[in-house]
Amino acid sequence: MTNTLLHETKTYKLSEINHIIGGMLNLAGDDISVAKIAPPGLADEKTLALAFSEEEIAKLSESNAGAALVPLGVSIESLSTIEVERPKLAMMKLIHLFYVPVDAPAGVHPTAIIDPTAQIGENVSVGANAFIGRGSVIGDNSKILPNTYIGKFVEVGKNCFFNPGVNIGDFAKLGNNVVINHGASIAADGFSFVTESAGTIETAKQQGKVEGDFTAQKIYKIPSLGSVTIGDDVEIGANACIDSGTVENTSIGRGTKIDDLVMIGHNCKIGENCLIVSQVGISGSVTIGDRVVLAGQVGIADHVSIGADSIVMAKAGVSKSFPERSIIIGQPAVHRKEFVRQLKGLKDAGRLAEEIKSLKKEIGELKQG
Amino acid sequence: MTNTLLHETKTYKLSEINHIIGGMLNLAGDDISVAKIAPPGLADEKTLALAFSEEEIAKLSESNAGAALVPLGVSIESLSTIEVERPKLAMMKLIHLFYVPVDAPAGVHPTAIIDPTAQIGENVSVGANAFIGRGSVIGDNSKILPNTYIGKFVEVGKNCFFNPGVNIGDFAKLGNNVVINHGASIAADGFSFVTESAGTIETAKQQGKVEGDFTAQKIYKIPSLGSVTIGDDVEIGANACIDSGTVENTSIGRGTKIDDLVMIGHNCKIGENCLIVSQVGISGSVTIGDRVVLAGQVGIADHVSIGADSIVMAKAGVSKSFPERSIIIGQPAVHRKEFVRQLKGLKDAGRLAEEIKSLKKEIGELKQG
Amino acid sequence: MTNTLLHETKTYKLSEINHIIGGMLNLAGDDISVAKIAPPGLADEKTLALAFSEEEIAKLSESNAGAALVPLGVSIESLSTIEVERPKLAMMKLIHLFYVPVDAPAGVHPTAIIDPTAQIGENVSVGANAFIGRGSVIGDNSKILPNTYIGKFVEVGKNCFFNPGVNIGDFAKLGNNVVINHGASIAADGFSFVTESAGTIETAKQQGKVEGDFTAQKIYKIPSLGSVTIGDDVEIGANACIDSGTVENTSIGRGTKIDDLVMIGHNCKIGENCLIVSQVGISGSVTIGDRVVLAGQVGIADHVSIGADSIVMAKAGVSKSFPERSIIIGQPAVHRKEFVRQLKGLKDAGRLAEEIKSLKKEIGELKQG
Repeated sequence: MTNTLLHETKTYKLSEINHIIGGMLNLAGDDISVAKIAPPGLADEKTLALAFSEEEIAKLSESNAGAALVPLGVSIESLSTIEVERPKLAMMKLIHLFYVPVDAPAGVHPTAIIDPTAQIGENVSVGANAFIGRGSVIGDNSKILPNTYIGKFVEVGKNCFFNPGVNIGDFAKLGNNVVINHGASIAADGFSFVTESAGTIETAKQQGKVEGDFTAQKIYKIPSLGSVTIGDDVEIGANACIDSGTVENTSIGRGTKIDDLVMIGHNCKIGENCLIVSQVGISGSVTIGDRVVLAGQVGIADHVSIGADSIVMAKAGVSKSFPERSIIIGQPAVHRKEFVRQLKGLKDAGRLAEEIKSLKKEIGELKQG
Repeated sequence: MTNTLLHETKTYKLSEINHIIGGMLNLAGDDISVAKIAPPGLADEKTLALAFSEEEIAKLSESNAGAALVPLGVSIESLSTIEVERPKLAMMKLIHLFYVPVDAPAGVHPTAIIDPTAQIGENVSVGANAFIGRGSVIGDNSKILPNTYIGKFVEVGKNCFFNPGVNIGDFAKLGNNVVINHGASIAADGFSFVTESAGTIETAKQQGKVEGDFTAQKIYKIPSLGSVTIGDDVEIGANACIDSGTVENTSIGRGTKIDDLVMIGHNCKIGENCLIVSQVGISGSVTIGDRVVLAGQVGIADHVSIGADSIVMAKAGVSKSFPERSIIIGQPAVHRKEFVRQLKGLKDAGRLAEEIKSLKKEIGELKQG
Repeated sequence: MTNTLLHETKTYKLSEINHIIGGMLNLAGDDISVAKIAPPGLADEKTLALAFSEEEIAKLSESNAGAALVPLGVSIESLSTIEVERPKLAMMKLIHLFYVPVDAPAGVHPTAIIDPTAQIGENVSVGANAFIGRGSVIGDNSKILPNTYIGKFVEVGKNCFFNPGVNIGDFAKLGNNVVINHGASIAADGFSFVTESAGTIETAKQQGKVEGDFTAQKIYKIPSLGSVTIGDDVEIGANACIDSGTVENTSIGRGTKIDDLVMIGHNCKIGENCLIVSQVGISGSVTIGDRVVLAGQVGIADHVSIGADSIVMAKAGVSKSFPERSIIIGQPAVHRKEFVRQLKGLKDAGRLAEEIKSLKKEIGELKQG
């Protein structure tokens, strides 16, 4: 068995593919059938090679590819091509042609544990050793893979797909078409604690230093009365964590995509169609507008808000709020223009020391005569 | 079903609530019963609204709330209020009144796999498909939720609560009242390796550059002979990881709270009552004093120690040790005062270049005349 | 039960140990038997104390240790020692002597769910509630612990060890001796999306700002047609995530060690014998050469390549490619030499402002007189 087998289950004629992806077909020979897609270096005569960059296009001349998908305006001598304006969009459609879905047969596996009060919709798949608690509702056509845990009074919409090992806490409310990847945690308790009197952080905020005796302080947990609400078409990455709200639900807007190992804290309100890249950490009570992009490893401090259509660059540490359409970078994060100034300043500092030295010398000479 | 149902299971009179949270009750009408707590914007006449900030207090005038919990000294015309000195503490007590615990019925679920040599205390809950290995001991009243794995010779104290999907390796030793959230990993092998001769890192440390041929080097794993010791009242977040020690146990002090996706490496000694926020990464053999706060995404290099009552600000990269009561920030991390200087320097650098230019001009003029 | 029990199952004479680790034995008395290894502070007369640092060596005089393992050239009065050139290497060998492996009896647990078309090798252990999908192949002597999920057409080599709660997606291909820790995710869908027309990021890249109306844009998922290929001798940490490739497989080279909570995105090509420390995030389509070390919390932007034998320091944010043997640091990451200059500049900036002030004064005086 090799992984290439996975592409060889179906074949499509170039003209069929062209019709589906809406490109421009240039036949250099027969309207052949292709059985897979691959980069030029891995292509054989049954392959439609994907050549989007100049580098990949150059490789086509040495490739065994039967045909190639190329950007608009690119032509390759004696090779059938399909030209497209937006190659990544065409690739998405192509992948759907060849994609082999994860096995999730309709029906409840005999080892699954489902509370008798739970309601399971039509055509639902519940995998081996999955657990569904009392009063929970699973919408039609949803697929719950093995070893997934769903607590009590959870609402799951239609056409959802939960990969193995997902954990969903009580009272969570998920829309339709929600995809959750391996081991993600939805509606675990928020990280919220309180002490009888001011602790080190409160003191430091007031006084700028840590003074006092905190040894007797007990830390009390604030349990989460709220849960998590997730809109339609949301995708959540492997081992990502979305914590329950304290009193209200933490909420994720429709269409937002969340990558692996992202942390979204209690009480956050995340807008629609956001892209939240791997290992982003969002503290408690943060508000993120619609269509915001948070690049990898960004951190956002509690109670901050980020306006719609903003972009936060990778690793930024955001400790204040920003308006709509901001481009945010750095730590502490600032508008991109300010960051460019800072970076220039950093590069200049060495040179400045040199210049000051030479100015000193000139002044010395002036003084002497 | 809506999530608000969750709040409507119990009701309390305002006077009862006031008695429990120790506030000052101002009745503007009857001593009504409330069935839930919520922010003013989501409150109805059966709700005790939580209005702690000026913003939320202002919303009370337009709210349907039956009453409000407010900070000491705040009075609202024609609305019953309970004034409290420390609203977050009062909220914690209130939430306990309305909280609906996760289902974890006493007894062993028929699908749980428990080694015959394991000892299960009184009133313990072991959920569906949970696994408990040989020689392990589970203290009275502890709750082990579905799909949790507990290896061999693990000691678990009383009143612990392990959410679904937790994995605990061999020989781990947990105190009483330990809470572990979804999918956390306790006592996985530490990340510890060795090569026959010096590798790239060792070479770079000695020579300041990477020179030599390392192609033949094999990397040997150092298995973890130690495990993990966790004190009473510790809470560990979803998908967090606490690795086993190499020879001694990694240890987490009593009362310390650890957020989601935190990594604590092998051999670390973490003090008592620390707060370790999401996505913090602590390398091997680090010592953290009592009551230290590590804010989100902080990283701490191996063998570093941080003194008691210190605060490490979000995203700091700590590569050296700091004494007690330090406030630490930046990357490489420094005392806060030094950081403020650095930041000012960064902002100044652009201005300095301008000033030097003007000084040059003045000197030129002086020279000429 | 205490954790020290774990060390007391076997005993070895000092001469036996010396023979195994290839050291120099100095007997101060009998060739005693030792039953465990520990730091000097925790050692008793049946313990071989590990004293590698000056600090630990100093503690030997007050220790009850029966003998000590010390670096070459260290001698301790009236205590038997074994001197070794490379103490960490010797410790690795010693730990293997005393190590108690995780229970994983050969055979298939009755609660495991194995598709009839899956092929299970000789002497394989499949734990409670583990799931193995259709067409998957498990090599001889591999151990699959409880609650692990293996999808369809997955290939697992010989002598692999998968800890509890691991999730492995369809078509993944793992070599021999692969170790995966608690809850790690292999071959979850990559984070790859596309819109019909340019989104905010594309616009910002072209124009330097976010302009236009993006409200109507739908985000389309690009499913992963590829999977993940993992070479021999790879180790993957707890709750780490390695995502599937878009068309080709994401690949991890032979001998590479990956720590907890690391994220490796779709299409990455990771070399052999790399060390990737906790919470590192590698975006899509990154190429990492052989023997590269990525320290904790490093982030690497998509399409970047890092040459062989390079070292990327903790928390660096790498947004461009670097050649072989680079030492990389900072955010945005630069060669170490450049970083040292930057840091110096930052420290200098305050002083420069002072110097400019004094120069101004001198020029003023010169002008006046």
